[in-house]
Amino acid sequence: MPNKLTYFFGGGTADGNIEMKNLLGGKGAGLAEMTNLGVPVPPGFTITTECCVDYYDGGRKWPKGLDADIKKSMKRLEKAMGRGFGSTKAPLLVSVRSGARASMPGMMDTILNLGLNDETVEGLARESRNPRFAYDSYRRFIQMYSDVVLDISKEKFEHALEQAKKKTGAKSDADLSAETLQKLVKTYKGLVKKHSRHSFPQDPWSQLEGAISAVFLSWNNQRAIDYRRIYNIPAAWGTAVNVQSMVFGNMGDDCATGVAFTRDPSTGENRFYGEYLLNAQGEDVVAGIRTPQPLTKADGGKKSLEAAMPKAYADLVKVYKSLEKQYRDMLDLEFTIQNGTLFMLQSRVGKRTGAAAVRIAVEMAESRLIDRKTAVMRVSPDQLDQLLHPTLDPKAKLDILAKGLPASPGAAAGRVVFNADDAVAWVENGEAVLLTRLETSPEDIHGMEVSKGILTARGGMTSHAAVVARGMGKACVAGCGDIEVDYARKCFTVDGRTVKEGDWITIDGGSGRVVTGKAPTVEPKLDKYFDKLMTWADSCRRLKVRTNADTPEDAVRARKFGAQGIGLCRTEHMFFAEDRLPIVRNMILNMKDKKVREKSLEKLLPMQRHDFLGIFAALEGLPVTIRLLDPPLHEFLPNFTEVTVELEDLRRKGKNKRKIAELESLQAKVQSLHELNPMLGHRGCRLGVTFPELYDMQVRAIMEAACELKRRKVKVQPEIMIPLVGTAEELVLTRRRAIAVAQDVQSKYGVKVKYLVGTMIEVPRAAVCADEIAEHADFFSFGTNDLTQMTFGYSRDDAFKFLPQYVADGILPIDPFISIDQTGVGKLMEMAVQKGRSIKPKLKCGICGEHGGEAASVEFCHTLGLDYVSCSPFRVPLARLAAAQAAVRESTAKVRGSAADTN
Amino acid sequence: MPNKLTYFFGGGTADGNIEMKNLLGGKGAGLAEMTNLGVPVPPGFTITTECCVDYYDGGRKWPKGLDADIKKSMKRLEKAMGRGFGSTKAPLLVSVRSGARASMPGMMDTILNLGLNDETVEGLARESRNPRFAYDSYRRFIQMYSDVVLDISKEKFEHALEQAKKKTGAKSDADLSAETLQKLVKTYKGLVKKHSRHSFPQDPWSQLEGAISAVFLSWNNQRAIDYRRIYNIPAAWGTAVNVQSMVFGNMGDDCATGVAFTRDPSTGENRFYGEYLLNAQGEDVVAGIRTPQPLTKADGGKKSLEAAMPKAYADLVKVYKSLEKQYRDMLDLEFTIQNGTLFMLQSRVGKRTGAAAVRIAVEMAESRLIDRKTAVMRVSPDQLDQLLHPTLDPKAKLDILAKGLPASPGAAAGRVVFNADDAVAWVENGEAVLLTRLETSPEDIHGMEVSKGILTARGGMTSHAAVVARGMGKACVAGCGDIEVDYARKCFTVDGRTVKEGDWITIDGGSGRVVTGKAPTVEPKLDKYFDKLMTWADSCRRLKVRTNADTPEDAVRARKFGAQGIGLCRTEHMFFAEDRLPIVRNMILNMKDKKVREKSLEKLLPMQRHDFLGIFAALEGLPVTIRLLDPPLHEFLPNFTEVTVELEDLRRKGKNKRKIAELESLQAKVQSLHELNPMLGHRGCRLGVTFPELYDMQVRAIMEAACELKRRKVKVQPEIMIPLVGTAEELVLTRRRAIAVAQDVQSKYGVKVKYLVGTMIEVPRAAVCADEIAEHADFFSFGTNDLTQMTFGYSRDDAFKFLPQYVADGILPIDPFISIDQTGVGKLMEMAVQKGRSIKPKLKCGICGEHGGEAASVEFCHTLGLDYVSCSPFRVPLARLAAAQAAVRESTAKVRGSAADTN
Repeated sequence: MPNKLTYFFGGGTADGNIEMKNLLGGKGAGLAEMTNLGVPVPPGFTITTECCVDYYDGGRKWPKGLDADIKKSMKRLEKAMGRGFGSTKAPLLVSVRSGARASMPGMMDTILNLGLNDETVEGLARESRNPRFAYDSYRRFIQMYSDVVLDISKEKFEHALEQAKKKTGAKSDADLSAETLQKLVKTYKGLVKKHSRHSFPQDPWSQLEGAISAVFLSWNNQRAIDYRRIYNIPAAWGTAVNVQSMVFGNMGDDCATGVAFTRDPSTGENRFYGEYLLNAQGEDVVAGIRTPQPLTKADGGKKSLEAAMPKAYADLVKVYKSLEKQYRDMLDLEFTIQNGTLFMLQSRVGKRTGAAAVRIAVEMAESRLIDRKTAVMRVSPDQLDQLLHPTLDPKAKLDILAKGLPASPGAAAGRVVFNADDAVAWVENGEAVLLTRLETSPEDIHGMEVSKGILTARGGMTSHAAVVARGMGKACVAGCGDIEVDYARKCFTVDGRTVKEGDWITIDGGSGRVVTGKAPTVEPKLDKYFDKLMTWADSCRRLKVRTNADTPEDAVRARKFGAQGIGLCRTEHMFFAEDRLPIVRNMILNMKDKKVREKSLEKLLPMQRHDFLGIFAALEGLPVTIRLLDPPLHEFLPNFTEVTVELEDLRRKGKNKRKIAELESLQAKVQSLHELNPMLGHRGCRLGVTFPELYDMQVRAIMEAACELKRRKVKVQPEIMIPLVGTAEELVLTRRRAIAVAQDVQSKYGVKVKYLVGTMIEVPRAAVCADEIAEHADFFSFGTNDLTQMTFGYSRDDAFKFLPQYVADGILPIDPFISIDQTGVGKLMEMAVQKGRSIKPKLKCGICGEHGGEAASVEFCHTLGLDYVSCSPFRVPLARLAAAQAAVRESTAKVRGSAADTN
Repeated sequence: MPNKLTYFFGGGTADGNIEMKNLLGGKGAGLAEMTNLGVPVPPGFTITTECCVDYYDGGRKWPKGLDADIKKSMKRLEKAMGRGFGSTKAPLLVSVRSGARASMPGMMDTILNLGLNDETVEGLARESRNPRFAYDSYRRFIQMYSDVVLDISKEKFEHALEQAKKKTGAKSDADLSAETLQKLVKTYKGLVKKHSRHSFPQDPWSQLEGAISAVFLSWNNQRAIDYRRIYNIPAAWGTAVNVQSMVFGNMGDDCATGVAFTRDPSTGENRFYGEYLLNAQGEDVVAGIRTPQPLTKADGGKKSLEAAMPKAYADLVKVYKSLEKQYRDMLDLEFTIQNGTLFMLQSRVGKRTGAAAVRIAVEMAESRLIDRKTAVMRVSPDQLDQLLHPTLDPKAKLDILAKGLPASPGAAAGRVVFNADDAVAWVENGEAVLLTRLETSPEDIHGMEVSKGILTARGGMTSHAAVVARGMGKACVAGCGDIEVDYARKCFTVDGRTVKEGDWITIDGGSGRVVTGKAPTVEPKLDKYFDKLMTWADSCRRLKVRTNADTPEDAVRARKFGAQGIGLCRTEHMFFAEDRLPIVRNMILNMKDKKVREKSLEKLLPMQRHDFLGIFAALEGLPVTIRLLDPPLHEFLPNFTEVTVELEDLRRKGKNKRKIAELESLQAKVQSLHELNPMLGHRGCRLGVTFPELYDMQVRAIMEAACELKRRKVKVQPEIMIPLVGTAEELVLTRRRAIAVAQDVQSKYGVKVKYLVGTMIEVPRAAVCADEIAEHADFFSFGTNDLTQMTFGYSRDDAFKFLPQYVADGILPIDPFISIDQTGVGKLMEMAVQKGRSIKPKLKCGICGEHGGEAASVEFCHTLGLDYVSCSPFRVPLARLAAAQAAVRESTAKVRGSAADTN
């Protein structure tokens, strides 16, 4: 451990600065920066994040030298404050707070007033001439310390506090007298003794040691782990620990504590905004025991800080203005006023809603505080995503039932139903429903269509439910393993609570939360700030953004969001339409009968042509990539167990021989088409090879639609895509037939249409053999869902059984179905692009997996040199922004690189 | 087409020679060689295989110039023979025969006596003064030509022939008079006119053109395609066509035709062996119309050729001896004797049984005709495989019902049963049974164990049935798609024929044939020749050969076959044992209950320890690689549909509430463990990560067994193998725990055991990230079954739906589950070895997939520089031989290379 372990701040200078966030955490770096800027900050020191990492690597032991270093820093602090740690005359009290690289509000632990014991409390009482304050501080300290360090639950102390209030008739904590508080301290110490079998520690140094270790440990409490999983914060970062001398907002009515934002974090409006409490400590604001007052007269009139303590308020305004100018961003500030004097306890870039992020970025750019590229960088793609969907009202109190995967953003409330038919029936009766399933299948589409949102117990971010919901722009929480669905009784249970059919629930597909009842939501608004930011983003990016769309409606919606074509039009969804499924089924059940097969395909041809006519027309000449039939045929047939049960039932009754025979044949067919691993089965171009007429029909429909429009002088750009190619020969074969059909159609229509025939790269072997394949492909489109499945050997429908734990345990940094695994899957993609372009240097390469709408993956695609990404309509703006940010980051890196070169 | 299209032979010299097999086919090269050696061969010429390839590439048109070239060659032939093609005085007749690079006996077409027409037949009759012979030749020609070129079925002509015999009271063809034959020719020509709507072609040139095209086309008849698929002959090779002047064995009683082998093709004994027919043409021998006589007095006494035509026989002996010396191999010869003069029509290396191949190779090496390395190269690994199993008696007449995949060699006869319990019951009653299933699962093991062989309708070469059968050394035909199994009625049907429970059938797992009744089989014998050859092989090879074995019995058997350790010991098979499955099930059904889990593992620990004690002891210090639990847990549970049906039934009856509740809970658990794609599901080290106690128990059992033996001074070399690793972190985690357990056990026993912890490379991502993984692995073992599944995206259990067609259509050169796909999967293996050894240069690498026992794959592993291959016990000799051949081939190539360098 050769590095510096602690960084001091105080007396106008600091060892650290705002650039050292990784080492000092956000809070520590902010305290150092403010100190350097001359802002009043109580002195203290920061224990680096490296110490925390070392703590875990070393089997939960302090790194060597940390103990000595802390002693040294405490000496310096005593000197700066003119007080003594453990002194009974002028006792030095400190706060011990966590502070990670990324803000994780409330997830880790904080201890205030450390240094108090039975003797120093007396000293504090004497010095402050305020025994009430001293004992109030002491009882707060015992309570916090016991909770955080000694693992004694808060409730036990709260209970004693309530009893004291009852006994003395006090309405609030502030009404308790010094004597009552003194007694309460005794009671508290008794509780500690009872539950920990040890007396409350009196030695300030052992208090400090315990508190620091507890903060280290809080990095891995369940809350923090969950938070990191949701926000993709690596477990390896660790947290810093800030030890800071206490200032007191609870010494009397010339004292206060509060939080402030330099702009409105909810709307982004450029106005000072915040809350404070008189005669209180920071935790009171958070705990919500008393209702805080607004800071400004505009918000709070006479009760505002501006009115109550004008001098301190004026100082605060001066500080916030200078800090915002320095940071060039909206800040979140914490302050304490002790006897009329302002102290800043924290300054950090403030969290904000998506809408606020956009407005702040645009307004700061327009006032030249930042440039446009910086503005584009200031809004995270996920925030933009938020903007496009209703969300749970952040102010609402929620009763959270369970948490699943945030599969498709948006908040939606509805009555629970358990199958698609019920969904339709309830909606026809004017009800709003939420379809809840173990998992969805293409047969549920009609139910999903009418539901406000979808909740599934199984499946991941790219499960059927998730993909379809995102396509529809509907809220979806998937893989919610906590709920146990009972179809038979039409209910689900979670932690002993039961939700029945017809009960209201609300889901938030942006966070994965499932909430009881009809929770209040907030509707999205796309304003002028949004438009401006997207224009700036488009001027930065190199990657094109297309959309995945299967219908003209989707296509039109996506174009409104800025899509530059269709990157994936799935034809199988068309096969599931109500008027077609019977034809498709009949064909599959009689696949070996050439006549039936041909007749079925004849019936499907005009329907498919009609689909493509609509889509081509909606795209007005932009490229449309159409994937030929991909899923295994049994997906179009009913479930084997259901058929078997029905059959057994009929047999038992012994009647209806014809129906029995029919079901027997159906059962046999379903069984013969049954696959143990359909994902690796008879699907994709394997269907096209074994039943070539199927692909012929689809190509014919595509080309007839294209020729028809060409005749009508409408521009078309069809791109025929062969799925699941693993060998060059598969492409040779299917492509040859496609070209033959295309030529036939063109000569019949007497027009020429420019079209391409390309392939998906989604089987690992295709990546490995991409050079051979490129010889026969007009384009490559990465199907990263399947590529991820096969490269990892994870079934996206089953991986929910271990993936969450893998991510939580750090085996994987992130769910690879959410963000491309750049180390493994990404290497294969890189190989495919290199090999493909070694044969055709300008080979068009895109991505049409769900990753095309995820920010990190979009950046990766930019880096690989792909031509476009494609994603569901509602993710198009996100992808545009992510593509712009990738380009900006790249150019910044280049500028830095060349600057380094000239040095 | 710049190359020479035809190669002439005759008059003591030939354009070609024996080295030109690829261009001239085996037959053509042999005819050229014999001509060059001065052996009497009727002159002729060979049309190259390139012409055939060109014929297909050009859309079934003759290559440019071929027509002219043939004309030129025919002129040369007329000159050499002093006869004229189409001449009525001395008509030149020719045979037109196929001849591919590899011998494909009887698969393609042959036409004799071409050049005959209504006029030349008269000329021939006059010239030979034998009208009977002339018309017999003509009617044969019409029949053959009509069958092969005009596609008129042979039966029509046979029928007319039979009628003629009846009418004239002739017993055999030879009894028919010239007049009758003349009439028959008329009838034949009438048949041709009727069925082809054209007269039989009279122009010899157009006859020749038709015959040559027909031979080209016969390369792609169904028989030939099937044969190529079975013997892995590429479709791209094409066939040569041999046009040769006719000599006649049917001109009278001083004429004969026959076939001979220079050594006994069945035993390998060094004795001349063959058969002949007096006054006959070659096809009569093949067709078996008359019974041929033996060649030698030793075999046939007075009826032998040696006795009947001593002069011609002496010539034949001289020729065969000189040819064998020249070819340095056992030969298959075809000859015709025309008016007492011997002509050789074919000489090629003869097909032989495995036993014969071994004996011939060893005896030839011992007599210094070839060296030992050559002897090692002379036996194909597949032939060796044959040696180790009983086979169908090649002399028996078989009624072939169907054909599936040759999944595990050996022939076995038994009564058909349709489930494992029935198998056990029948066997207990003293019956021999053949278990027939749609597919097998681990629950069928007890039935498989008692069955003589296994037949499945589904699944490929690495399906459960195939893998287990090979491990047991039992015959298995898998993926026999032609049979329709009806469990309910306990029967299967194929082509309208029904086989019921209890019926006898015989399967040949070496060829995939399913035969009715109890077909005669031949038992294997391992003789001194085998031992000698294997000793020579071992002295050549670099690759070590281990075995896949799960029991001490398997291990002992494999060591007898020469295994140098265990490369894969699957622990899951131990979990299926009858006394354990209930414990395992109970554990799985209560996985979340820590107590049940721990109790179950406690019960399993001594059982597993006992397993390993036995295996370690059997290996006596050789390395034993033990794979920790791999399959998804639901494999240990009953089938969902079956449980559901049983439950519905009970519910309907309404009684037995407790049983209903039990079944409900079982059903729910089975459903919750159900996976859509178990192959990509919660299995392998994913189980070890989520239920670490499972792997802990297994490691403990391994180390306790090892320590126990170490104490008893028995050497042990355990290698703990973590399956399905895809990320380095998975290995880090499981390895860390394994080492902790191992240390604990060692310190408890007070002994040190050298052990390794390594990983399988079977997930594509593991190959891509092999460098990261190698840092934490003591060894790599390629699981090429899974690697093939995931690299191609083929489920080995489902791929039978399209793979056969893929291979037949040439999309894949061979089933990648049989032989490693070197282009795709092999590239990933190469990458893994390189990356792994870039971190640890001496990293031990092996293969434990089923490919480890397949010759081409073994050679590939040798080339990759692996340390060992591992395969099922019965394949160990095969792998040893294949490894030796790979080494010999490599050294030969090096010698050639360095010779080229010095040139």
